[in-house]
Amino acid sequence: MINYKERYGLYKSLIEDKLLTFTTKISPIGIYEPMKYILDGGGKRIRPMLLIFCCEAVGGKAEESLNAAVAIEILHNFTLVHDDIMDNADTRRSRETIHKKWDKDTAILAGDGLLGYAYKSLLLTKSDRIQDIAKSFTEAIIEVCEGQSYDKEFELRKKVRIDEYIMMIDKKTSELLKCCAEIGALIGKATQEEIDALKLYALYTGLAFQIQDDLLDIIADEKEFGKRTGGDLYEGKKTYLLLKAIEVAAETEDKEFLHYIIENKGVKNDDEVQKAKSIYEKYGVIGSASEKVEEYTIMANEELNHIKESDAKSMLKWFSDMLLNRTT
Amino acid sequence: MINYKERYGLYKSLIEDKLLTFTTKISPIGIYEPMKYILDGGGKRIRPMLLIFCCEAVGGKAEESLNAAVAIEILHNFTLVHDDIMDNADTRRSRETIHKKWDKDTAILAGDGLLGYAYKSLLLTKSDRIQDIAKSFTEAIIEVCEGQSYDKEFELRKKVRIDEYIMMIDKKTSELLKCCAEIGALIGKATQEEIDALKLYALYTGLAFQIQDDLLDIIADEKEFGKRTGGDLYEGKKTYLLLKAIEVAAETEDKEFLHYIIENKGVKNDDEVQKAKSIYEKYGVIGSASEKVEEYTIMANEELNHIKESDAKSMLKWFSDMLLNRTT
Repeated sequence: MINYKERYGLYKSLIEDKLLTFTTKISPIGIYEPMKYILDGGGKRIRPMLLIFCCEAVGGKAEESLNAAVAIEILHNFTLVHDDIMDNADTRRSRETIHKKWDKDTAILAGDGLLGYAYKSLLLTKSDRIQDIAKSFTEAIIEVCEGQSYDKEFELRKKVRIDEYIMMIDKKTSELLKCCAEIGALIGKATQEEIDALKLYALYTGLAFQIQDDLLDIIADEKEFGKRTGGDLYEGKKTYLLLKAIEVAAETEDKEFLHYIIENKGVKNDDEVQKAKSIYEKYGVIGSASEKVEEYTIMANEELNHIKESDAKSMLKWFSDMLLNRTT
Repeated sequence: MINYKERYGLYKSLIEDKLLTFTTKISPIGIYEPMKYILDGGGKRIRPMLLIFCCEAVGGKAEESLNAAVAIEILHNFTLVHDDIMDNADTRRSRETIHKKWDKDTAILAGDGLLGYAYKSLLLTKSDRIQDIAKSFTEAIIEVCEGQSYDKEFELRKKVRIDEYIMMIDKKTSELLKCCAEIGALIGKATQEEIDALKLYALYTGLAFQIQDDLLDIIADEKEFGKRTGGDLYEGKKTYLLLKAIEVAAETEDKEFLHYIIENKGVKNDDEVQKAKSIYEKYGVIGSASEKVEEYTIMANEELNHIKESDAKSMLKWFSDMLLNRTT
């Protein structure tokens, strides 16, 4: 019997160690101090884990994939630093964001430096498929940038369809997870069938993850989740829940209120959060989002049928179930 | 007899064509419109040229290096977009900068997208040394970020030594040129001796180029140069000229005036520009900078002795001389 949590913890600490020693440089401090600050900020380290598990699931060794796993985590942190500037976010993982603690210029440059170090770590990987690995990494960066661009565009639009929303979160979240799966599989010398299956596994897991995130904003315990309940509503964020509610709500004052949230760029107080929540409940939007998360998780796990049995495959199964059942 | 200008023009138009068709995507326009705008902005295209010439100089074919050459130019444009935000620059190549024409968020994201496409183009290169090529590219990005960080740090410092200034412009300018030389040489299957010589050639050319830039700010014809004479003085920029003048000026009101320029973050009017210029002349700073440019150019050309004779080698010689004698 595998102790999943223990194994996850073990790999996580390997990643953390490498992240904290990604460079011995301290100068110029204008760039290295904020870079170290963000990498030291914790987080679930989901992406590097996925990469390692996928490598192992096709028969590769975890240690062969560590540099690439670290690269993915650094890349992810690059996107956080620059997105936080664009989103005017003051905090990230309960600490001040870089542009808040320092300034915008510092955050721009630290982000750029992170992207450089992400490639540096990736290119330490020994694999005869390094060109394909680097191509996959690069495509993910482009997708993430496109996703962020759509995200900003949708913020300004009054109407966003659900399929557009899914396309956007696919680019912002799932593409990087697909990249983790592909790179892990390539390092592990996977067959094309295995690569395709793991990429789909990652895609569905990513979509489930993101919709779960939207759900947690409404249903999570505030203390445990670490974010304010209804934070998305306060921001007027066009989440899966809000867009779905607009789609299904009757043309009554319910729908008017949902449009009011968008037009006013967010609710004003907790009463309005409760009002939105009760509309979500009335039209079964919370249930339908939960179903969607479960559906995507089942689809993800089905893709694992193309992968032969192993401890690593069990880890992947556990991994997507864990993300589905998470409360934070 | 080689028609240098014609050959340069020919290669330049190959690069321009590829730059204008780097992607067929138009959506999301929030990212692709500014990316196309900056790549379409002209410029001397010095870096891709250097890469192609170095490839040819070691026996490689120009067309094998084109994707990498385009990659370097896209990378260079990425640095311009982000640096312009940090420098609060309103214009670039006589057009509005991206953050001015759109906004800062757009410029951050367009820069990130450019970096993605730079790697995408680079990774189209067919070479059994692709991993070393990508490593060189990545190191250059890190160096450029460090250089920009030092540049911002030096702006805030009252005292900067000349060797620190040289270190900073080495990182900001020469490292990318060294990368061009190395990648071109690697694609052309160079020996280690050839790689080393071409990297030094690029290093010295870069230093000459940057000091020439500082000189042109003072001595260039305003219309031809396309920038305001004394622009660096108005900004209080710690150029080679200003730092050298502070080093050699007598402890009189001359030195006081030079410190005044730094402390007041720039001169206020054309009279003060003329005053600075006459101090530069009095202490032979303009002459010493010109000598430095010539010295570095000679050192650059001497490195070419390690390269066997060819039209491409002559092009490199012509190239560094052209940069030395440029008036824009």
